[in-house]
Amino acid sequence: MAITFQNIADSLTRISDKIYQTPIVSSALLNAWLGHEIYFKAENLQKVGAFKARGACNVIAKLIESGNPPNKVVAHSSGNHAQAVAWAANKFNIPATIYIPSFASAIKIQATKSYGAEVILMDSRQGVEDAAREHSQQEGVYWIPPYDHEDIICGQGTVAIEAMDQLSLIPDAVFVPCGGGGLLSGVNIAAKGINPEIKVFGAEPLNANDAAESLRKGAIHRLLESPKTIADGVMTLAIGEINFEYLKQTDGILEVNEDTIVYWTQWLSQLLKLQIEPTSAMTMGAVCQYLQNQKSKQRILVVLTGGNIAPEKHRQIWEKNWLEVLPSLAIELLGDNKAGHS
Amino acid sequence: MAITFQNIADSLTRISDKIYQTPIVSSALLNAWLGHEIYFKAENLQKVGAFKARGACNVIAKLIESGNPPNKVVAHSSGNHAQAVAWAANKFNIPATIYIPSFASAIKIQATKSYGAEVILMDSRQGVEDAAREHSQQEGVYWIPPYDHEDIICGQGTVAIEAMDQLSLIPDAVFVPCGGGGLLSGVNIAAKGINPEIKVFGAEPLNANDAAESLRKGAIHRLLESPKTIADGVMTLAIGEINFEYLKQTDGILEVNEDTIVYWTQWLSQLLKLQIEPTSAMTMGAVCQYLQNQKSKQRILVVLTGGNIAPEKHRQIWEKNWLEVLPSLAIELLGDNKAGHS
Repeated sequence: MAITFQNIADSLTRISDKIYQTPIVSSALLNAWLGHEIYFKAENLQKVGAFKARGACNVIAKLIESGNPPNKVVAHSSGNHAQAVAWAANKFNIPATIYIPSFASAIKIQATKSYGAEVILMDSRQGVEDAAREHSQQEGVYWIPPYDHEDIICGQGTVAIEAMDQLSLIPDAVFVPCGGGGLLSGVNIAAKGINPEIKVFGAEPLNANDAAESLRKGAIHRLLESPKTIADGVMTLAIGEINFEYLKQTDGILEVNEDTIVYWTQWLSQLLKLQIEPTSAMTMGAVCQYLQNQKSKQRILVVLTGGNIAPEKHRQIWEKNWLEVLPSLAIELLGDNKAGHS
Repeated sequence: MAITFQNIADSLTRISDKIYQTPIVSSALLNAWLGHEIYFKAENLQKVGAFKARGACNVIAKLIESGNPPNKVVAHSSGNHAQAVAWAANKFNIPATIYIPSFASAIKIQATKSYGAEVILMDSRQGVEDAAREHSQQEGVYWIPPYDHEDIICGQGTVAIEAMDQLSLIPDAVFVPCGGGGLLSGVNIAAKGINPEIKVFGAEPLNANDAAESLRKGAIHRLLESPKTIADGVMTLAIGEINFEYLKQTDGILEVNEDTIVYWTQWLSQLLKLQIEPTSAMTMGAVCQYLQNQKSKQRILVVLTGGNIAPEKHRQIWEKNWLEVLPSLAIELLGDNKAGHS
């Protein structure tokens, strides 16, 4: 059964007393420079500092609603999904075990523990996934995967309904980052359910463009090794199988190079005074690619997906000073690579 | 005539349709670690990214209200006051000339220009002050000083009335940074006007402790040279004469060392997902000094005064990783200097 708009609306009702209704912010200066209106949904201010709280909360709440609550939940993640599952399980008083690769940032591991979860560190990305899956073979243990799950997709999609309700306007286009594809799938269904004219795009690092490649090839493209990108929220090796079908229904995935990701991380923090992950700021690179081809003034909704940045990433972000180069639609910095287009 | 609570309440009425009512945020994790309740008033999300918009707006609005609008306003500043006057003048369609030392950050100079002000760069801190004062001798030209002015004090004080109205509770203590002393003076009058039991403290870098020294000596203490502190919002050489009388009525000024300032800059951005100036984060060092001596659970209001950080400051902030050291009341890092107490 395909996910419907109603499934996502029901998910929002299910989780809305658990999550924050995060604010929508904008920058008059940025809008003046670009000549369009950009609305940022600040999910960096969400519980655990990322939209991932929505999906994790939705999965557990739905299991409880169905009269079949798990005795325990397990998950694997190197990032925000780990914290999200730990937080959501704690919220519903269900024990959680989270498998995390030992190379993950210390601050994310610490945060996951602070929500009361048992954390098990393992050497490899594949290792944690296998361990979580194996653990879930035990009776009463439920595995919450990071993106390839219908109730995760529905949970993440709630951000679009909530944002448009707050905005009281129908944007011309919505932009979100694409890693495994859960958020983009859910937002596309939600937005087009509100109005089929709304365009929905994903943004992906050029250096980790498995989703864009998958859409070009018509089959899931799997990266052979961990990609090199500062956008550490979208380093997944391949999109989910469930998600792939939904991603085909979006308006495309735009690729952004590394310098441009850093550029917008600096500028958005400067303009909005928010701490914003490179993964979220990357989306502005895609927005500018889109806006260059628009003849009329556009109203754009951007989901700022998270605000968790490790100290070493802060140093990397501020190595160069990009604030001397004012934002314009033509901004696309050429570093080690050239930006591709889908 | 001494400034009264009513003067500040009137100022809030005067400016409230021009400025943002910034949100109050808190961190459940931080409150659990410290065992107290801390409410942060996020003035980093204020117009121009700092509370300074309040004072500048109040001065100009009151001049217009009095039937004596200036033909032009002038100001001198190396930081947020420059942007605040430029923004407020623009809001009321009055031309502005801002004198800025050439060593000020390029991003702040650029922002001041972007609000339509004429910017004149000069070599020294004394030079810009002299030039602004001299310019104001011309007919119809009004000089808006950064802190030593009653309507600036009243404007900055509005933040306390607004915050307590939003909170619907009376905090035990309020903490703000102290540079020239305008904000601290205004907040003290406002808070004690709401309830005389509320304690009001200033926070100052140990390396730029002219205000604490002034209170100890009973006379204005002037630093002989520009102090070395990462808290660039409070590098003033001496507090204002008007302010000094009001600062004597506060509950004290607590001094914070450089490592502790950087520590809280990292932690507040990590916990709140906001971009926060070191000057604002410094306040938490003072809060912890105060809380160490409290026997009952305290409710504390902290004004996060601004969010403007130059790229080179970002690099300096994240040189070391302090996020491995969890916050506690005993946190006081010993770097090149020891923390003093008033």
